[in-house]
Amino acid sequence: MSVQAVLFDVFGTVVDWRTSLIRRLQQFGTESGVQTDWATLADDWRAEYEPAMRAVRSGQRPWTNLEHLHREALDKLLSARGLDALDEAQRQELVLAWHFLDPWPDTLAGLNRLKRKYIIGTLSNGGVRLLTDMAKYAGLPWDVVFSSDLFRHYKPDPEVYLGAVELLDCKPENVVLAAAHNFDLAAARQHGMKTAFVPRPTEYGPRQSRDFKAETDWDFIAQDFGHLAALMGT
Amino acid sequence: MSVQAVLFDVFGTVVDWRTSLIRRLQQFGTESGVQTDWATLADDWRAEYEPAMRAVRSGQRPWTNLEHLHREALDKLLSARGLDALDEAQRQELVLAWHFLDPWPDTLAGLNRLKRKYIIGTLSNGGVRLLTDMAKYAGLPWDVVFSSDLFRHYKPDPEVYLGAVELLDCKPENVVLAAAHNFDLAAARQHGMKTAFVPRPTEYGPRQSRDFKAETDWDFIAQDFGHLAALMGT
Repeated sequence: MSVQAVLFDVFGTVVDWRTSLIRRLQQFGTESGVQTDWATLADDWRAEYEPAMRAVRSGQRPWTNLEHLHREALDKLLSARGLDALDEAQRQELVLAWHFLDPWPDTLAGLNRLKRKYIIGTLSNGGVRLLTDMAKYAGLPWDVVFSSDLFRHYKPDPEVYLGAVELLDCKPENVVLAAAHNFDLAAARQHGMKTAFVPRPTEYGPRQSRDFKAETDWDFIAQDFGHLAALMGT
Repeated sequence: MSVQAVLFDVFGTVVDWRTSLIRRLQQFGTESGVQTDWATLADDWRAEYEPAMRAVRSGQRPWTNLEHLHREALDKLLSARGLDALDEAQRQELVLAWHFLDPWPDTLAGLNRLKRKYIIGTLSNGGVRLLTDMAKYAGLPWDVVFSSDLFRHYKPDPEVYLGAVELLDCKPENVVLAAAHNFDLAAARQHGMKTAFVPRPTEYGPRQSRDFKAETDWDFIAQDFGHLAALMGT
């Protein structure tokens, strides 16, 4: 049986969250007059994501969607910077910045090529609404949106990978996960899915410490989405 | 708060399942040499859907997806017609006919207009794979696919309507259900959603006995999807 669907990690793999987020935060700063180092706020905000998700994944706290985790982390970071004066509407506006992120330059052309031959979709720790807003904003041509809140689990929990495979009525080997993160591909492979690595070495900016290259023999190793589309015969 | 998303019932509302199905079954008959009255088989097949779903909805049997219900009903109908000789591959091919249904003539233009202003998606008793195959085949430009197998419930169970609203991070009144079936809209309204009726008086062919018109004051009552798009300001 051959590949029927290609699912994509989104943050970092499909969109350049860091550049987009910093630009939106800086724009918020200009418009609101709130002064802080928005670039480090963006990096600090992303750094809160792993431990917050881990608390959910470990069962330490009940299911909590990414939207809520983003807000909690923002409140904490604003407080640490003495920015408690930001009001509710401003905080909501900042959290919403995560919905409107720009794709990498090769993303759209690659996805449109792959879509001709395969079902293409997300497999993301973002939520349905976030991913849908992002797709409309950035023109991401998903056939289907698979997200953590469908399964009430975060990657790399098995429920996310196996849940998507089941909804696609596929065997795991008929579905490819494409990601810029080796840990994500390792989980997908563990559950029998095919794997595709695309490096995004600038995703984390100066703080990037890993995922500069494929760490093992993933089924596809591509330079970008155009190269992946070519490797997959589209 | 205004409308953010428009969700659509699919079978009958978006696609003309009966004409498409009969044509595909007749084509199967021509190619395979299997002779039967394919038009009544299509109608009989659809007639099995309500009671089969009811058995799941009542808890009489555990969650069973539409794909499986379609197959069970087909096996029963073939047997009743003395067509037990059809092999596994042929039965799978027939069940797959439900994935490739043609839209009504006004569907695509209307959806594309609505998509510019709103999130558009399915809210269907079909499964994710069926709805995704259909969208790719028919060019249905969904932003998001909500289906019975996400919620492991069939409409009109509340879980389907409220589950979609929650995943959209909306209040019920920010989401419209568009359907050709009054019962579906009644359930949506009961849960606080907005409602849009579009008549499809030929959906069931000669057996059509209801839903010739809006039976109450739905929020939008349109002649077709183009009219709906106009009523909704797109």
